Parts: sequence; structure tokens; C-alpha cells
Amino acid sequence: MDQICVDVKRPDQSKDQCTDQDKTDADNAEEKLISSNKQPWKPWKHSRLRIRDCVLCMKKAMVSLASMEWYCYALLGMLTALISFFMDLTVAKVINAHQWLYGCLKGQHLLQFLCWTLYPACLCALSTGFSHSICPSSAGSGVPEARAILLGMDMPDYLSLSNLFAKVVGMTCTLASGSTVFLGKVGPFVHLSTMVGAFMNRLHVSCRGGKQRTSKGEMLVVAAAVGVASCFGAPISGVLFSIEVMGSHYSVSNYCPCFFAAACGAITFRLLSVFSRDQETIQALFKTSYPAELPFQPFEIFLFALLGLICGFICCIYLYCHRWALRFVKTNKLISRFLATEKALYSAIVAFLLACFTFYHSAGHFIAAELTMKQLLSSLLDATSWHTISQNATGLPEPQNTFWKAWNPPDGNYFKTLGFFILTKVGRLVVACTLPLPAGYFMPVFIYGAAVGRFVGEGSAYIFSAKLLINPGGYALAGAAAFSGAVTQTLSPALLAIEMTGQCTHAVPALVATLVSNAVARAKHRPSFYDGISLIKKLPHLPSLIRACPKLASVQIKQFVIPAGEVLERDEGLTGVQKILNDNTEEEIPVVNSHDSLTLLGTVNKSQLQDFLQENKNEGLYKQLEEACAIKPVRLHLTPETTVKQAHCIMSVTGEQRLFVTEIGRLYGVLTRKEMKKIIEEMAKEV
Amino acid sequence: MDQICVDVKRPDQSKDQCTDQDKTDADNAEEKLISSNKQPWKPWKHSRLRIRDCVLCMKKAMVSLASMEWYCYALLGMLTALISFFMDLTVAKVINAHQWLYGCLKGQHLLQFLCWTLYPACLCALSTGFSHSICPSSAGSGVPEARAILLGMDMPDYLSLSNLFAKVVGMTCTLASGSTVFLGKVGPFVHLSTMVGAFMNRLHVSCRGGKQRTSKGEMLVVAAAVGVASCFGAPISGVLFSIEVMGSHYSVSNYCPCFFAAACGAITFRLLSVFSRDQETIQALFKTSYPAELPFQPFEIFLFALLGLICGFICCIYLYCHRWALRFVKTNKLISRFLATEKALYSAIVAFLLACFTFYHSAGHFIAAELTMKQLLSSLLDATSWHTISQNATGLPEPQNTFWKAWNPPDGNYFKTLGFFILTKVGRLVVACTLPLPAGYFMPVFIYGAAVGRFVGEGSAYIFSAKLLINPGGYALAGAAAFSGAVTQTLSPALLAIEMTGQCTHAVPALVATLVSNAVARAKHRPSFYDGISLIKKLPHLPSLIRACPKLASVQIKQFVIPAGEVLERDEGLTGVQKILNDNTEEEIPVVNSHDSLTLLGTVNKSQLQDFLQENKNEGLYKQLEEACAIKPVRLHLTPETTVKQAHCIMSVTGEQRLFVTEIGRLYGVLTRKEMKKIIEEMAKEV
Repeated sequence: MDQICVDVKRPDQSKDQCTDQDKTDADNAEEKLISSNKQPWKPWKHSRLRIRDCVLCMKKAMVSLASMEWYCYALLGMLTALISFFMDLTVAKVINAHQWLYGCLKGQHLLQFLCWTLYPACLCALSTGFSHSICPSSAGSGVPEARAILLGMDMPDYLSLSNLFAKVVGMTCTLASGSTVFLGKVGPFVHLSTMVGAFMNRLHVSCRGGKQRTSKGEMLVVAAAVGVASCFGAPISGVLFSIEVMGSHYSVSNYCPCFFAAACGAITFRLLSVFSRDQETIQALFKTSYPAELPFQPFEIFLFALLGLICGFICCIYLYCHRWALRFVKTNKLISRFLATEKALYSAIVAFLLACFTFYHSAGHFIAAELTMKQLLSSLLDATSWHTISQNATGLPEPQNTFWKAWNPPDGNYFKTLGFFILTKVGRLVVACTLPLPAGYFMPVFIYGAAVGRFVGEGSAYIFSAKLLINPGGYALAGAAAFSGAVTQTLSPALLAIEMTGQCTHAVPALVATLVSNAVARAKHRPSFYDGISLIKKLPHLPSLIRACPKLASVQIKQFVIPAGEVLERDEGLTGVQKILNDNTEEEIPVVNSHDSLTLLGTVNKSQLQDFLQENKNEGLYKQLEEACAIKPVRLHLTPETTVKQAHCIMSVTGEQRLFVTEIGRLYGVLTRKEMKKIIEEMAKEV
Repeated sequence: MDQICVDVKRPDQSKDQCTDQDKTDADNAEEKLISSNKQPWKPWKHSRLRIRDCVLCMKKAMVSLASMEWYCYALLGMLTALISFFMDLTVAKVINAHQWLYGCLKGQHLLQFLCWTLYPACLCALSTGFSHSICPSSAGSGVPEARAILLGMDMPDYLSLSNLFAKVVGMTCTLASGSTVFLGKVGPFVHLSTMVGAFMNRLHVSCRGGKQRTSKGEMLVVAAAVGVASCFGAPISGVLFSIEVMGSHYSVSNYCPCFFAAACGAITFRLLSVFSRDQETIQALFKTSYPAELPFQPFEIFLFALLGLICGFICCIYLYCHRWALRFVKTNKLISRFLATEKALYSAIVAFLLACFTFYHSAGHFIAAELTMKQLLSSLLDATSWHTISQNATGLPEPQNTFWKAWNPPDGNYFKTLGFFILTKVGRLVVACTLPLPAGYFMPVFIYGAAVGRFVGEGSAYIFSAKLLINPGGYALAGAAAFSGAVTQTLSPALLAIEMTGQCTHAVPALVATLVSNAVARAKHRPSFYDGISLIKKLPHLPSLIRACPKLASVQIKQFVIPAGEVLERDEGLTGVQKILNDNTEEEIPVVNSHDSLTLLGTVNKSQLQDFLQENKNEGLYKQLEEACAIKPVRLHLTPETTVKQAHCIMSVTGEQRLFVTEIGRLYGVLTRKEMKKIIEEMAKEV
């Protein structure tokens, strides 16, 4: 319990230590090399020696520039961005192939129907089957789990390499099934980058010769920022997301690493699209060009606030349906039994049904179903109001023409299409959320919000058409931010919307709409989207439990504390020490005044005890334990009356692995992270 | 010590309590009203009653919508924005008057010289004299003090209303002295909004009937965000600033309030400029229009990184000079004696000397001295490269023509002017920083950075002029962000630059340059601008002390802990209790096992003790203290070995006023905030 406060780790501070460390590393390596000369002959001794020297030299040069962890942060950002980019590339190719095939079958309704429905059904089945056979915990978005892990809960299943692999392949299939299934990639990317971060942390620890500093949490917080940043090339909203996801206290020392890694991720992601000739330079993902001179009238601020209100209310309905659907799937005997054995089949059936609905000749042409998710978002964010287009639709440039035709089919008008889209989409989103495959749920709600915003914007443009030129794209932007912000109960989507479109002019409207929608969504203890999943999956995430059931904030640790196990007394004999060394697995062993009083004095290290034993056995001088080993005082005591919330907060802020609980000086027990996880899981079962 | 963790306060959670609270408030008010009927006659009894009912009704309605503190946040934002706007308006009028007068005197060199030099000299003398006579602690930027206050240090001088008044008037004079003295308003606005925040907090507490929750810290953190936001209408960078200023741990519960208040402030500030017909709609303060199609070539990222490197190195020189100057002014006997008595005269002389230098016919026409600070920034951020203009300078539109003439005087060229500006400005900035008047030092370094960036940008534009069209305005933007980021060792300037210009396309370059310059500035434990001032002023700000002297992180509290004072024992008699009640001023009194063992059991409230005394005196039954009063256990014990850093971190994270220190269960002493402040001041003296 040396360090209550997590140190403000700065590049410079750790640099010196690091250089020293590396000198000894190099020395060790040389020693080994010399000793290896005595060992049997190996080929290219001198070349190997030279290469090794080069590597060590390079390592020294790198470390003299910045400490090792900064390279890990950079690598983390770049790796995640690489995964993100290549996933996008693959998905785009598969979707293009699908569109090409669908286009080839024009006129043959049955074949078109089969192509439209079987494609997503097969891909969803593949995604589900593959991910579940490799790693069952790769299903879902992973953000609720990542939140729990960031608060210090140990969930190794969710950070394994097999999970990474399953998630990447599964995600690619899910995304490739396109706008029918309508799922995104933000959440899984937060999870993916957390996994890459955990891997980086292991790398870092092994680089430093196994001496682990308490930097795992740091790397994971950085990874959360990288996830969002490398998904859309939006570094700043990534950092804000990592702050929001932390629940209670954000360690400001993570702020610079977060920004650095997020910037690395975002730049890599955007440079890759430049090199792949997708874009000419580093630009926003969904670049828009709103009129800069008069982006909006001042009175429109009220319309944006109204939009936020509408989004907030729709969000409440959506979240209610979502929770209901999750619970229904879990409690309905038929479905849950079916899901237990035939996950892939379930996914295939659901995807097939969704595809039947979105087929052009069923309901598809009322809901612009032929547009991909990217096209949907681009069309909704477009600056030209559809009211203007409807008055003169001839000679539209190419992407706009396709969008206009999709939203304004021959036997309908754009208000009807948009309205029908908004009405049916809630149901389709909720159904898609029950699919047991790796998928993100942020992008769907983002696009849904954009549709709601566009509806309000087009309405305003229609009403004020005589007097003013209103830009419905701005409403779509604000609506997307507001709705996704309300669903996740965060504010970073406002910034994400701006970074994705590169439209700084609409920062204030997006922020206003998001603030209002958040106020509605957070009223009356309503759990957020992630909270809902946390509660249903019974994840050990304390903040969401307390939000759902505020009573839990006052539960005391008294009933959960485990006994401290074997302890030493101040003048413990040799046999006692020997026994402790044999039985105990902890590195630090508590020392008490006497076995009767149990007054906690401090702790001693196991290695100290071994030295003590050695000395006494060899030299025969019987020293007191207290004299031989320096007893390290325990700097922070909890009492049985401390609440679980307090203990959890202290543990996650300080990064402690074990806290001692005393009652009037007497050792009452200990509280470890493992125990804490058990306690919270216990609480989750009861909610 | 009830609440170790600061609760995640959410609007909904506190609402219910609040409504209850208000019901009782209303009841109390009615009761008072009824009882007041017995008191002597007062006029318009019924009208007063009705008005009071109306007010109570309105309060109920407001509280049912959101809890009271949210109104305080909104009001805080709006008030600060109002002050900011009207200050800007006044300053603009004074500067216009000066320019008009200067223009009228064209041809008369002596009169022009007097007008140019005496104007800022008088204003600086006025600013210094006024602020020092009203409140001496209003001098300087106030950010270093605000940082200490935010970490829980009690500095009432810096939050008083007289300070607010002195600062507003002083600031107006300082800003009105224009680009000669070259000082800004960001820092003082952070300080100003902190003062408004403290005032709001008092208002809030009195609204809730004096029951103070630990929300003062919260209001001050929000105020820090509001300061930046309402200064430039930049809400997001305001929030990031408030995160960075917190040193170790940012409470995520402050995140939403920060965003809300900052948005209120920013919108008010921008709407005011719309209503004053300055702007047509809500827009960026220094709106630029860079080419959106190809904002920069991918390879320019390296040039931006190089710019960051250059800014980092110049920043190191600047900070070294700055610290040297501050120390020189303090230690030089002549100056310090002069400053002790004649502050106003000192300001006048320094301003006069600066003005002599910047007069057009001395060095002024080599450094574009006739441009105001706003014009300087606008001219530097302009998208058209001066190389292009130099080839065809006829028929430039108006503001551009003035700028071009200022930067490209008849007997020089723009590279010379810019270079001379950059070279001389460091000295002038350092001299201006020694002025003992309320002033901000952020905007000057921001503009200086823009000049450095413009220089690099113009250089690149000149070199690559044959092949590419480079936008030097983008370099100015990135340079401004990088240099001000390096000086303050923060990253929020990158976002501020983007929000101020509304130029999302340059987010990545600004971020890259700021990250690189920060890396250079933070290397080798170099203190930031604020840290330097903190150290020289010996402010109780622990993080800057530890940055300057890392040894201090391991100082233990052992030597500083004060005795706990009077304590009660478990079965204390009536006389003992009576004595404690008479002597002790604390609200909670520690209870120990016995006066000999001093084993800490918990605390009892003073009111409980009074009840206990009353009961025993009236009814004669002699109860044990333990039975009569519930002893509240102390949930967190420090030990004498806890370091000052740990104790400080725990105090600022938990908001505790008093922490108990025990040694093996025995009460060792207490640590209060007052004591903590003394300890840190003690440490500051030794550094």
C-alpha cells in the first residue's frame, strides 16, 4: 500500500529511471553473451553479436528520446487504426460485390430477392458461428465490459488474443451484411483497442524486464480513447469518450497519453485513406460543406433545443423497447432454448426476416433501404434542402441524384419516406440488438438521430421556405449528436459529429441539442444503453448498479471482508515464519502486535522473511523478527463501516490490489480486487 | 468523514432530495408568515403574501424542472459572458478613440508621439493604481492562484467581491492600452469566473437554507471552464482546460455541469455580438475560410511537427527569460524598493518605454506595431500567402490591404518585418509580464505563436511556390496552438485555436504541433509558465512544487500533524462532556477508548452531546455516553507515514475537511485543510 495516489507520470520523469534500467539490461545481455561463449558452438556468432548490439543501441537511442511507454501508445494507436482501415476496406469490397450482383439481376425479382436476403443471412450466421466457436465472449459491443475492466475488474476472457481474432473476423462479416442488419463498429473498436492495449501492456512489461508498474489501467484508458479515434479519425472526441467512460474519477496523468495515442491513431487512419487514393488529403470522414457565411439564424437555436427534446423522448422509448427485447429474449423459454444451441441459425433467421422487410419490392422502397449506411448518413447530412430539390430536380450531380431518388421514390414523397424510416427503424434496431454477434450499436443510433434531425430540418425548411433558407443538414448533424448522446448518456457525440463532418460552424447547435437530450434521458434514474446491458448481463460495473438502485451506495463492506489469513506477530518464532512461508502465497504478509490483540503494525515482504530465516539458520543468532525485517507501515486503513462504493472508488483511483480493514486498530480482514469483483457480481445478481 | 468519494451528482439524483427540501422550505416560510401575523402591523400584508406565494411557486416550478444548482451554473455562464462582452465593447471603443486621435494628428510627429506613448502609460498607471488601492491581490493573471484554490486551498482574498471589481476595472484599462503593452484577458477571466462561481455558491447555499453540501469545489471547477468559454465563445476547449487545470484527478461528475455552463457562457457571449450587430449569426471569433477541398498536403504534417519543435524550443527560451525577469524584479534592490511604493509609476514608465519602442517612427514600422491585437491575429491567420500578394498587390480588399501595408512597409519586406517582430517580441513580452496590474498572458503568447507559425508558413510557401499552393494561415493557427500549449504545458490550446477560427480542417495539424511542442517543453522537469509564477509567488500548489522538486513527493505528514485536541473517552462523565462543549469549536468530536490508550473509536456530534447533557440533567438518569450517543465510526485512517502528496490527493478527491491520523489504532492527530495549506506553504518556502 505504498502509493495511494497514482503518480502523475510524465515522459521526463520516467525517462531517467528508464535509461538506468536499460543500461543494466544491456550489461546483463553482455554478461549472458560472454557466458554463452562457453556454451556449445552456434553459427554466425559475430553477426549475431553485431545485430544484438545494433538492437540494443537502437533501444538506447529510442529510450533517450522518450520513455518506452510512449512508443507503446503510438503503436497502440497505429495498430488499431490499421485494423480499422483494413476492416473498412474489406467490408467496402464485399458490399460492392453484393451491389454489383444485385444490379446484375435486375428484372428477375425472385433472384434479386434471394440475393438480397440470403447474403446478409449467411454473413450473420457466419459471424455468429465463427465468433462463438472461437471465443463466446466476443459477441456484443464490448463497451459495457470495457467499462467494467477500466474500473479495475479483472475479466481475462475479454482481453485475450483469441477474442481479438474472433472479434475482428466476426465484425467484418457483420459490417459486410450492410444496411439490412444495420450495425456499426464503434463499440467493438473500443473493445478491440482495449485488447490491443492489454497486449501492448504485456509487451511493455516484458520490455522493462518484468518489473510491472501499475500502468495497466493507464494503457486501457488510453486504449478506450484510441478506439473511437481510429474508428472515425476523430482524436478529440476519443479523449472525451475515455473521460466519460471512467465513471467517477479521471486521472489527469492519462490525458496527454490519451491525446497522443488518439492523434497517432487518427492520423494513421486518415493517412491510410490518402494512400489508398480514397481521399486527396487528411479530411473529415463525412465531409460536408455548409454555407460558412450564415450557417444558421440565431433563433434556430431554439429549434435545435426542440430537436434535442424530441430526440430525448424518442430515446426513452427506444431504450425501453431495447431493455424489454433483451429481457424477452432471455426469459422467453422458446427463444432462450433455441438461442442456447442454435445461435447461428437464430442470427440467420433474424437477418433473413429483416432483409425480407427491407427488400425493395416489399417495404424497401418506402424506407430508402437500397442505400448503404455510409450513403444514408451522407444523404441525411447533405446541405441542400429536399424542398429546394423537389422544385427543380433535373440535372442533379451524381451521388445527390441517387440519394434523391432513394428518399423520394416515384409513388411517395420524402416526408413519407423519412417518417416511415423513423417509425420502422426503432423496431428493426431493437431486433438487430438481440443478435448474438460482435457488433456496434452506436452508429445505428447515430444515423437514426440524423434521420430524426433531417425530418425536423426538412419540416422547418418547408415551413419557413418563403422567408429563409434553412439548412436541414445542420439539423441532421445536431440530431445525430443528440440522439446518440441521449442513448449513451454522454456528451462526446456532439464533438464526434463535428469531427466526422468537419463542420465547426454547427458546434453550438450540436452541443445545445445534445445537452437537452441528455437532460431528458438522464431524468428519473433512467439507465443508459450500456447500463441496461450491464444490468442484464450482470457485469461487475458498480456505477450502473448504483444508478439503477441508489440504495446500493450505502452497502457496507463489513459483511464481505474476508479474513486476512495467516499473520505474523511482532516476535514470531522461526517455526511460525517457516509455516507462513510455506502456506502463504501473498507477496506481503501482515504483521500484528500479538496473535491475541491482532493490532496491525504493517507488512513485511516474503523475501525479507526468507533472508531472516536464512540468517538465523546459518549463523545461529536469534534475532527478533522486528529487528531483522523492516516492518512497512500500512498507510491507509479501511474500517468495516466503509461502504462498498467508497472502497471501490479508492481502489480504482489508487490502483491498489489489496486494502486492509481494521476495527479500532485490530486487523479485521482484507479486501482484494478479486473479492471486490465478487461483491459487485453479488450485488448485480440482486438488482 | 462520511463521504470518501465525491458523489457522482446527477441532475435527477439530487432533484428528489431538492424537492423535499423545498417543500419544507416553503412550509417554514408559511409558518414564519403566520407567526409574523402576531407582530406589529406592516403595510400591504396581503399583496406581500401573494408575491411571496408567487415566488415560492416559481421556485417550486423551477426546481421541479431541474435542481437549483443547474440554474446557478447557467447564471454563472451568462454573467461571465456578460462581463466579457461589455469589457470587449468598452475596450474597442477606447481603442477606436485612440486610433481616431492618432489619425487626426497625422503629420505632427511630436503630438503623434505623445498620443502614442502617453495613452498606454496613463492607462497602465490607472489600472495599476486602481487595482492596488482596491485589492492588491487582483494583480497578475490569477490562474496560478485559481489552480491552488481548485485543489482545495482556502484563499479568501482571491475570491472576494472587491477583487472582482478591481479586476474588472483594471482589466479594462490594461486591455484598452492596446497592442503596445500587448496583454490579454484569458487568465483573468478564469480568475473572474472563479470569483463569480464562489459568489454563486454562496447564493446557492443561501437558497438551500444554509445547508451546505460539498459543492464549492464543483462550482469552482465549472467556473474554470466558463472562464475560457465565455472569453472566446469556445465551450469545448473551456471544458478541456478545466480538466487540465485539476492537476491529479478530475471528478467526472463535474463534466456535465462544466459543459452546460460553458455552453451557456459561449452562447450568451456570441448571441450578444449578434444582437450588437457585430455579427450576423453565431460564428467563430476569428472566422477564417481556408480552402476546404485540399486544406493541406499529407507531407505537410511533417512541417507542422517541425513547427511544433521550433515553438517548443522558443518556448524554453521565453520561459527561461520570464523566470529570470520575475526573479530579477524581485531581487534587484533598486527595482523592488521602487515597486514597493510606486507601482503605478513603474507601470507608467514601463508602458512609456514600450510605447517609445513601438512608435511608428522609431522601430514601430518594422514590427507592424500599428495593428491592434485583433488585427494582428486576423492578419496572421489570413489564408492568402503574402508571397502571392507580393506578386500582385493591387486592388486588395480593405482589411487585407491595411494588413499587407503594415507587414510589408515601403522600406522592408514581410520576412524582415515578421522576423524582427518575432525577435523583439520575446523581450517585450517578458518586460510586460513584470507589470503589477491585472492582465492575461495567454493571448500574447498565442499571437506570438501565430507569428512564428506564419514565418514558417511563409517560408514554406516561398520555397514550394513553384509547385504547390501552401496556406500559411494554417501554419499560423498551428503555431499559435503549439506555442501557447508549450508555454502553459496544456493541450487545450489546440482545440481553442480551432474553435476560435472555426477551422476544423486544421484539427490534426494543430494537434500534432501542440503535442510535439509540449513534449519539448515538458522534458527535464521544466516548470510551465503558471508553475513558474506559483513557485516565485510561493503559492500553496503542490503539483508545481513536486514538479520543481520531485523529492517533496516523499515527505511524510508525521512532522506536520497537529494534536487532535480535546477528546472524549468511551464512558466520559458529565463534567468532561460539559468541558468539551465549552472549549471545543469543532462540530464533531473524536471519541477514544480511554484517555490512556487513546484508541480511536469514532466521532460524536456536538448536538448529540448537548442532548445527552440535557437528558441527564433533567431526568437524572445517568446513561453511558456510548449508549446515549451513536458513535459514528471514522471510515478512513491515515497513518503518520502517509506522504503529504497522498494526504493532499485524498483530501482534494474526497473533499474532506478533516482527516484523522492514527498509529496502530491510537489517535495520533488530525490533519485539516488549514493545516494542509500551511504545510504546502512551508514546503514552498524551502523550494
